[in-house]
Amino acid sequence: MSHKILVAQGGGPTAVINQSLAGVALEARRFSDITGVYGAVRGVRGIIEEDLVDLAQETTANLEAVAATPAAALGSTRDKPDVKYCQEIFKVLKAHQIDTFCYIGGNDSSDTVRIVAEEAAKAGEHIRAIHIPKTIDNDLVGFDHTPGFPSAARFVAQAFAGANLDNAALPGVYCAVIMGRHAGFLTAASALARKYPSDGPHLIYLPERTFVVDKFLADVKETYAKYGRCVIAASEGIHDESGAPIITKLAGGAVEKDAHGNVQLSGTGALADLLCEEVKNKLGIKRVRGDTFGYLQRSFVGCVSDVDQREAREVGEKAVQYAMWAGKNGSVAIRRVANYAVDYPLIPLEDVAGKTRVMEDELIAPAGNDVTPKFFDYLRPLLGKGVPEVARLRAGKVAKAKK
Amino acid sequence: MSHKILVAQGGGPTAVINQSLAGVALEARRFSDITGVYGAVRGVRGIIEEDLVDLAQETTANLEAVAATPAAALGSTRDKPDVKYCQEIFKVLKAHQIDTFCYIGGNDSSDTVRIVAEEAAKAGEHIRAIHIPKTIDNDLVGFDHTPGFPSAARFVAQAFAGANLDNAALPGVYCAVIMGRHAGFLTAASALARKYPSDGPHLIYLPERTFVVDKFLADVKETYAKYGRCVIAASEGIHDESGAPIITKLAGGAVEKDAHGNVQLSGTGALADLLCEEVKNKLGIKRVRGDTFGYLQRSFVGCVSDVDQREAREVGEKAVQYAMWAGKNGSVAIRRVANYAVDYPLIPLEDVAGKTRVMEDELIAPAGNDVTPKFFDYLRPLLGKGVPEVARLRAGKVAKAKK
Repeated sequence: MSHKILVAQGGGPTAVINQSLAGVALEARRFSDITGVYGAVRGVRGIIEEDLVDLAQETTANLEAVAATPAAALGSTRDKPDVKYCQEIFKVLKAHQIDTFCYIGGNDSSDTVRIVAEEAAKAGEHIRAIHIPKTIDNDLVGFDHTPGFPSAARFVAQAFAGANLDNAALPGVYCAVIMGRHAGFLTAASALARKYPSDGPHLIYLPERTFVVDKFLADVKETYAKYGRCVIAASEGIHDESGAPIITKLAGGAVEKDAHGNVQLSGTGALADLLCEEVKNKLGIKRVRGDTFGYLQRSFVGCVSDVDQREAREVGEKAVQYAMWAGKNGSVAIRRVANYAVDYPLIPLEDVAGKTRVMEDELIAPAGNDVTPKFFDYLRPLLGKGVPEVARLRAGKVAKAKK
Repeated sequence: MSHKILVAQGGGPTAVINQSLAGVALEARRFSDITGVYGAVRGVRGIIEEDLVDLAQETTANLEAVAATPAAALGSTRDKPDVKYCQEIFKVLKAHQIDTFCYIGGNDSSDTVRIVAEEAAKAGEHIRAIHIPKTIDNDLVGFDHTPGFPSAARFVAQAFAGANLDNAALPGVYCAVIMGRHAGFLTAASALARKYPSDGPHLIYLPERTFVVDKFLADVKETYAKYGRCVIAASEGIHDESGAPIITKLAGGAVEKDAHGNVQLSGTGALADLLCEEVKNKLGIKRVRGDTFGYLQRSFVGCVSDVDQREAREVGEKAVQYAMWAGKNGSVAIRRVANYAVDYPLIPLEDVAGKTRVMEDELIAPAGNDVTPKFFDYLRPLLGKGVPEVARLRAGKVAKAKK
């Protein structure tokens, strides 16, 4: 029996999502009974619009070059298909005799894969539906971590290592806002920037904990008194006890909403600016600077974890292998089996689809403004080889001589 | 005759300012008549406070590790010394029998060196005062370019290469704001992100040209119509025909001012947000995202040009050589003598001090929203080895099959 594979990419791009695409396309070449590998342009939207490309026509060298390129080479979409939309997908798959659907994406994408699989089963059609994980948010349930997260974490750690040095050279308060609406993993990654005991980030605020403005100001005041400076990492998703985003609270309601009615958190520097205003106004500190890492943390060319690259490639390869050999649908999970090694079990789509993992309590310091040593153990092996080292001068003081 | 050197770092940190520091400290070790190499903590502020460290006590390995670390290892300052302040500097130099003052910094720092040299001459004291260049703004008169600029330019180019891919994957308007109050070199560096003809940044706005909001909106509209997306690079220093910053204009006057009474441009995401608002409101485009590269562009750990590293090291070395052998004060300039090679002539402090270079007309496209091919020729050799390549899929379309 011959097989045809369709692969698509959904949601926010990452530094390694094209590794998974190359993994699918190249692994498929090893199977003589795979007669076609198509890519959908702009995720599921490209499927229903029948905008497909023939990946068999790609050279290996170009697929490798694309694999090393960040962001979704096929294009992506924010569409969240409902049952009707998935039925349209299903029609296109049938029209092209495609019997294997691989979707590279996060929890929304895994839900699409689940619905397509259900519709196929209802129709009595033999279609393999495989979810290939990716998300910088690291928020897939049942995974040790997700492809894309390690490279984004590395970017955040390297950015804070530099921001800490900059802040040490010209002291003041520095506050950077990091992506992650519900899960704080990426914000927490800032902790890996620390080398010396006085290094920042000194304070880390995660969406897993309630953000209390007065407590934040007290934390900053204490840190500033201790070090004469303060470096802060804040998740874009920080919220008050009622769950209301801090950006809404501080801005007095004047905020943008996205297509899904969610408050727009990315693509604006507002939260960092508002937090800085609070510090300036309430603590009277003059030099207060805010940054928002924005799209750089998921797309910067030239900051990638080799562990992440390898794993993103492997989940793509495993997807094809599972489709050809396992005879069932699922999500290719990443499980840590040694320090450091992983396995890629195929887990039920229902276990992943539409669910959101947040940081486990054991990774968050009791005070709610830092991570635990366990988080360092968790993240360090993921960052890969060649993370740049920083160093300080150790020269002794010169005795005063001026009369 | 024995000599003592004092070295300090001023102004905003860069990725390679510590290369120059190591250059001074290590080169000084080659001279048997140099009996001391001190570093001032926090720039000139550390001199008048007599907060000095003995760099002779540093190991070579640690100096090399510090050289590879971004931001000012000695600490920096924003102090702009006047004559009285420089007289205080001069007193401390005398008290410690320091006869060579090396200051690593931009045009403000070179002015400090100039005043110290003048005061020494007036007092009939033999003090060598050498300015060692650094600034990501690339705005020193008489220089081909300045240490720190190439690495920051590389960061901007790599960031835009990624932002362009991200924007291609999820189309919309993306606008990023880049540092540079008067000189647009760093903003212009975004152009080096382009590989394919449709790549962004599609529009580049520099402080050397008047920014007209209506022209900007027309440019964005045209680009969006052509590509279905638009990537914009804007300098933080863009201003209207009267010289008023666009940030002031769009914010209706509600802006922060710094210690020198200048409108605060860095450390806030306001300009990007305001430009995005204009595009959303006036053009009715839904997906509009703004980023502000902020402190990452000058401090990110792990994005550096090897050409920049080498040259920053060499200007430090040359400063010591000039102080020991040339018998005159000056600024260690960088002149391009081949494609690509440089020389480091010592030029008069008066030619550099307090002056600001801006982008030459021949580097700016006549339309005022892009650079010329000449700018590519100028910048490309500075970015160094190993700039990551990006690639696109080339696969052909699949014929439609759905009935």
